[in-house]
Amino acid sequence: MSLAPAPRAAADTDTIDLLRAVGREFHGRAWSLGTSSNYSVVLARDPLELLVTVSGKDKSALGREDFVRVDAAGRVVDGSGRRSSAETLLHCTLASMIPAVGAVLHTHSVWGTILSAADLPRGSLRIAGYEMLKGLEGIGSHDAFEEVPIFANTQDMAELSNRIRRQFAGVDWTAEGRPPCHGFLLSGHGLYTWGRDLAEARRHIEIFEFLFECVARARMLPVGDRSPPPSVGQRQAQQHQQQQ
Amino acid sequence: MSLAPAPRAAADTDTIDLLRAVGREFHGRAWSLGTSSNYSVVLARDPLELLVTVSGKDKSALGREDFVRVDAAGRVVDGSGRRSSAETLLHCTLASMIPAVGAVLHTHSVWGTILSAADLPRGSLRIAGYEMLKGLEGIGSHDAFEEVPIFANTQDMAELSNRIRRQFAGVDWTAEGRPPCHGFLLSGHGLYTWGRDLAEARRHIEIFEFLFECVARARMLPVGDRSPPPSVGQRQAQQHQQQQ
Amino acid sequence: MSLAPAPRAAADTDTIDLLRAVGREFHGRAWSLGTSSNYSVVLARDPLELLVTVSGKDKSALGREDFVRVDAAGRVVDGSGRRSSAETLLHCTLASMIPAVGAVLHTHSVWGTILSAADLPRGSLRIAGYEMLKGLEGIGSHDAFEEVPIFANTQDMAELSNRIRRQFAGVDWTAEGRPPCHGFLLSGHGLYTWGRDLAEARRHIEIFEFLFECVARARMLPVGDRSPPPSVGQRQAQQHQQQQ
Amino acid sequence: MSLAPAPRAAADTDTIDLLRAVGREFHGRAWSLGTSSNYSVVLARDPLELLVTVSGKDKSALGREDFVRVDAAGRVVDGSGRRSSAETLLHCTLASMIPAVGAVLHTHSVWGTILSAADLPRGSLRIAGYEMLKGLEGIGSHDAFEEVPIFANTQDMAELSNRIRRQFAGVDWTAEGRPPCHGFLLSGHGLYTWGRDLAEARRHIEIFEFLFECVARARMLPVGDRSPPPSVGQRQAQQHQQQQ
Repeated sequence: MSLAPAPRAAADTDTIDLLRAVGREFHGRAWSLGTSSNYSVVLARDPLELLVTVSGKDKSALGREDFVRVDAAGRVVDGSGRRSSAETLLHCTLASMIPAVGAVLHTHSVWGTILSAADLPRGSLRIAGYEMLKGLEGIGSHDAFEEVPIFANTQDMAELSNRIRRQFAGVDWTAEGRPPCHGFLLSGHGLYTWGRDLAEARRHIEIFEFLFECVARARMLPVGDRSPPPSVGQRQAQQHQQQQ
Repeated sequence: MSLAPAPRAAADTDTIDLLRAVGREFHGRAWSLGTSSNYSVVLARDPLELLVTVSGKDKSALGREDFVRVDAAGRVVDGSGRRSSAETLLHCTLASMIPAVGAVLHTHSVWGTILSAADLPRGSLRIAGYEMLKGLEGIGSHDAFEEVPIFANTQDMAELSNRIRRQFAGVDWTAEGRPPCHGFLLSGHGLYTWGRDLAEARRHIEIFEFLFECVARARMLPVGDRSPPPSVGQRQAQQHQQQQ
Repeated sequence: MSLAPAPRAAADTDTIDLLRAVGREFHGRAWSLGTSSNYSVVLARDPLELLVTVSGKDKSALGREDFVRVDAAGRVVDGSGRRSSAETLLHCTLASMIPAVGAVLHTHSVWGTILSAADLPRGSLRIAGYEMLKGLEGIGSHDAFEEVPIFANTQDMAELSNRIRRQFAGVDWTAEGRPPCHGFLLSGHGLYTWGRDLAEARRHIEIFEFLFECVARARMLPVGDRSPPPSVGQRQAQQHQQQQ
Repeated sequence: MSLAPAPRAAADTDTIDLLRAVGREFHGRAWSLGTSSNYSVVLARDPLELLVTVSGKDKSALGREDFVRVDAAGRVVDGSGRRSSAETLLHCTLASMIPAVGAVLHTHSVWGTILSAADLPRGSLRIAGYEMLKGLEGIGSHDAFEEVPIFANTQDMAELSNRIRRQFAGVDWTAEGRPPCHGFLLSGHGLYTWGRDLAEARRHIEIFEFLFECVARARMLPVGDRSPPPSVGQRQAQQHQQQQ
């Protein structure tokens, strides 16, 4: 089943307070330290309008004024004079390419940072066989894999936006079935993921961050004990012998 | 000493609030991220009735309506039309096989996920020699080991339920002495454990998660310094020399 | 400077609430999961009387009734009929051997557990050269080492108590200078430390747990880059070149 | 762009409460355990006056009285009779050398401790290529590196202060462009960083601690899978084949 189109969301108090709560939560988990990360919600389509975090804010203490409305090209349209996040264009690119996107979240975690640097030569991070993959929209089984594209990091958002468009050019985001990917990594930088609404995008962050930690720690784990264990029945018999 | 039969618990406000608190706590510890995990409490026996979490809910924010009553076959019996967790049948299987079970908890942690994948070829995870084993009901000494069965993961709950029944077929759960196991792992997926009541099941989660982390980190730890240390008395003498 | 004798503390509301707060904090840090750990405060000397946690309680939710008064032999003396922690005798042994002890805290952390198992053959864990050692009472420089005795774990508290007494036999705990040790480890089990009062014992827990993590992680860390860096002055010159 | 001169800050309730909040936060993150760490804010210049934490306080519970005013030589000037932190002189040295400093923060984290010990032979810790470097004032691209000087630890603050002055002698802190460094490490001890105000110094702590963890964990991570992945377009085609 493909993603349904995103419902319109008013830039009302609720949305802003939900984004502020996301900031506090992600800062607490060390996924949005310093003034890193940026978050957006789609307010309207035709024409596209997003609510994006203002540039350079501490995500643990976002105020009501730390958000700005932008158009499809990332220009501020609310007359506030505030500057939106430097990576606003990526939010706009994703929202305009993928019709179902209702929210885009970008985080910087330790595991995402080091895996995206380690696997950049391969071009993507493969996450395979974990039950938690089912937390990504449209994946119904652990017997699957998610190939998370890794883009080389840059400060040139227009150039990066073009690379993302080219990479995703052959993809039909309205097709039936699970989407071909649910997010991407920037090398040595962090994760972009999205969802039909903010709750789904937040869930995708949690799922990816969990899976990144699994992938990295599993690489570090030596192979365990290979001697065959007793069956549960044998085990009980042994215990009874010990107790007699 | 074997587990005593579970007391009946009313599906009252208290039980639901306790389960909601478990969800918030486990989400905070990163054991129930995304919409993973499911929890149940035995409401009645003869016939068996369980209160189970509704499918696909964020465990950090379970509402009063995010629980459903099911029978021994996992069918919803409260007329609510809500869908219980996809893994409801495992909760029912455990509650029906083990007379003393009053609550079943299932979590997804990083350590449980990677150990269950690493040790699947062996068929179980052995945890031996730790004092913390005494936190598992009926274990009275660190000089013990817990053999945690690992089942290959699947999306076919009926088939998995049958595998669990076969594995546990030779076990007399009412026998004197410690039970042969206190939980099991699904490979690349997570932990199922249980207790006579919710508090005991929650304790078992904490104990297992602690022990999983110990087992995994101990595998990663290089062997330490082997040079013999001075005795405490010699140490004091040396200090006095240094100070003079 | 040696430890001054412990002041008497009333078993009043404040002391109990402070111990409950310690339980919540240590549970939150995963140092007292399940029903592990036990804490005590010296209420009186001549004769010795301690306030100890009741056996088997969840440390995240200690109630006002989850403490019991015991004498120097660990016998309950408050007529409450409650059972004190199984390891009460160790608290009594420490309080009676070391005149300055006002509080004893015992925790189970992952790092303490795996290091105490790894270094048991050596008989102690050596912690050397860290600034944080200065957080242990009487240590005034990082240029020091703490040799933390490791005792093989047992369930026989009388036998263990005797081993501790023998190990500490040659020590003059009233001597000038830093004490020869500030705590000990039980292998695969956890840490015992103490202080003149509860605040100092709590600080010692934090210091030891921090240092255990440093020792373990430092063992895991590969040797870093050895190429000589530019000086800070050279660095600034290079930056100016890059910017021109 | 260089750092602008620090504005004057009154030692008012707000500043003290902000420092207390920093203490609670850093203690919670395990960067200021025990009584480690010390913090300062510049109150005035010409002559220099700093507000510094009192020696030996628990950073999770700083009271309003746990701060003291000192002059450029680190002497207490508020007549309170309280003793300032043993490392006060380092705060004064930094504030007097670097005109733009408005706050200095010193923390003890596990990662900073072990990296500073491991890389002391090299003389500095190099952090290169991470997006999060942009959180350090004046760094505008991930394509940069920060060379964090590591000084051998000592208890002689006057001697250490002189070493820091010598190391930083060739640096023009008022020059245009990014400053040559944003902090330094004491080996086996911890991090000193600063900012134009407390918010910037706190951000620098978060950035450095994040980067230390990245550097250390990246050293521990084995090289990943190198097989080329399918493109996102190929991936979607494969999925459709699987579903048919």
